[in-house]
Amino acid sequence: MILKNKEPRITLVGAGPGDPELLTIKGANALKAADVVLYDALIDEPILEYAHPDAIKVYVGKRSGEHSYTQQAINQLMVDYALNYGHVVRLKGGDPFVFGRGYEELDFAAGYNIPTQVIPGLSSSISVPGLQQIPVTHRGMSESFWVVTGTTASGALSNDLYEAVRTKATVVVLMGLNKLPEIVKLFQNEHKGKLPVAAIQSGSTAQEKLAIGIVDTIEEVVLEKGVKAPALLVFGEVVSLHPSFQPIRDFYKVLKEEI
Amino acid sequence: MILKNKEPRITLVGAGPGDPELLTIKGANALKAADVVLYDALIDEPILEYAHPDAIKVYVGKRSGEHSYTQQAINQLMVDYALNYGHVVRLKGGDPFVFGRGYEELDFAAGYNIPTQVIPGLSSSISVPGLQQIPVTHRGMSESFWVVTGTTASGALSNDLYEAVRTKATVVVLMGLNKLPEIVKLFQNEHKGKLPVAAIQSGSTAQEKLAIGIVDTIEEVVLEKGVKAPALLVFGEVVSLHPSFQPIRDFYKVLKEEI
Repeated sequence: MILKNKEPRITLVGAGPGDPELLTIKGANALKAADVVLYDALIDEPILEYAHPDAIKVYVGKRSGEHSYTQQAINQLMVDYALNYGHVVRLKGGDPFVFGRGYEELDFAAGYNIPTQVIPGLSSSISVPGLQQIPVTHRGMSESFWVVTGTTASGALSNDLYEAVRTKATVVVLMGLNKLPEIVKLFQNEHKGKLPVAAIQSGSTAQEKLAIGIVDTIEEVVLEKGVKAPALLVFGEVVSLHPSFQPIRDFYKVLKEEI
Repeated sequence: MILKNKEPRITLVGAGPGDPELLTIKGANALKAADVVLYDALIDEPILEYAHPDAIKVYVGKRSGEHSYTQQAINQLMVDYALNYGHVVRLKGGDPFVFGRGYEELDFAAGYNIPTQVIPGLSSSISVPGLQQIPVTHRGMSESFWVVTGTTASGALSNDLYEAVRTKATVVVLMGLNKLPEIVKLFQNEHKGKLPVAAIQSGSTAQEKLAIGIVDTIEEVVLEKGVKAPALLVFGEVVSLHPSFQPIRDFYKVLKEEI
């Protein structure tokens, strides 16, 4: 049965990095008002408790080994639910526009003249380092930050990363852990083997794992700490501000004095 | 009178771009629990309503023509309030670590052994374009975004901006409107006069103003639309996805056909 009394509309909501309290108040209000919630793999289930108990909740994410929806299938599902049930909240990890393919979903909805709204979320690129008290910018250390994906549509490293390793920007790589050896080589080719690096998995949640090192050692530390994908990488002097970096600094200081 | 029963602690909270509902739930909870709130010029007063009515609210921002606190004075005030009153929430516009000098405040507090916590906020760099449905990344158009300050400590343009204009990244410039002529020249020197640009003032609030054009015309459009500082600038093909860009595209298409 099609409910004729509900106007179709779609709200893209950024869920933030994981901790349900890091959702915005506006995002929680949209969830409360939703007839349907379509949510991703990166969404922790507790965040769905902000939604009305009667709302239809549909998991459309991709987890390894499971059946996964194509982007086209998600777009169609979103529109079908809006036309049949009214207000669809499309809940996406982080921010919908930071490698979230959010614009593709808006564009598809526009083809059906369904009104859309965007409620941004905390991007893990800034918030996950921030929760570890690693600032992406800091006076005298970093005047900018550059956020790059480690996984492009083609599967290759983004060309932008080849540029980014040459600059003074803090470089944040999302979805790049599986390409860590290649990324490390790019920095080493620029003689940046001693640049501080952090790898953070499941930032803001109880499962958070952190590895801190330098370009030359980060692969080893990642293994040692058991950091697994999906994880984000932060390359830059700002990582040296983390308390875990102090022993690393001391070690290289001693080494330098011995030489 | 010094209240001995309260443990001093400091929570840095990012308030987001302006709309009080774009605060996180965690940020609102911290405000509710605060004994003292120190807040910036970029904070809209309604957001303070999340705080307890009895909390001490101290404005430490800078508005043109007014007395302004130095960073050192803010640091000291924050620590003094924590030592005397307990839980201080330091409420900052956007995210505390995106040109927010948040780390300097944490560092100062650490010198007094006062425990600190960070609650990230929506950075205007991503969320303000996003609310206008301008995605900072989009498949086939932008694989990365680079966020640069227009106003460095020295007052000069950041060296990073000289690099950024050469790349394919979406370039977001915060606090750069007053340097728009210089920034436009940098892009023109790279033969990017036709690159789409947006300038957005007071994003997410009722006072929001938007100017959309290309590098060659943006100064004129900013004047015409009355966009004033503080505003953010977005340079990149992704700006062409905004509905206001369609007539600009059509105009250049006609121009091309006539030539």
